[in-house]
Amino acid sequence: MKAHIHITLKNGVLDPQGKAIQQSLASLGFDTLENLRQGKYIEIELSDLDSATAHTKVTEMCEKLLANTVIENYEIKIIS
Amino acid sequence: MKAHIHITLKNGVLDPQGKAIQQSLASLGFDTLENLRQGKYIEIELSDLDSATAHTKVTEMCEKLLANTVIENYEIKIIS
Repeated sequence: MKAHIHITLKNGVLDPQGKAIQQSLASLGFDTLENLRQGKYIEIELSDLDSATAHTKVTEMCEKLLANTVIENYEIKIIS
Repeated sequence: MKAHIHITLKNGVLDPQGKAIQQSLASLGFDTLENLRQGKYIEIELSDLDSATAHTKVTEMCEKLLANTVIENYEIKIIS
């Protein structure tokens, strides 16, 4: 069982890393960029057999360690 | 037009950050983890009107700046 997790900054939270990337791209000539935001992407392989248990566990991982829920959102996809 | 980019380490490339996360999770009691790999996730808003042009541009961005193609793979999804 695999889980794909996207961790992104909440709307309204400043993203200095994203802004830096956007400026670097603009200086390379990519001038049609309107906005860029960077997040984290995590792939996990789990030995749990059913997807409901896996989803519960991954949610707990996000809440406890992976995401800072004050400023970040997370999205979990379970792939069996 | 939006583009979602996933940048992940190629298979066989060591992922020390992923290993650190995996060990932290194991110490929190998540013992069914078999493997964990961390990557980057970038969301871009483009003012290009057609998706073919957007795809070409984002590919160029990845090759020139966003991904280190020696050790990383990238995957682009264009969402209109």
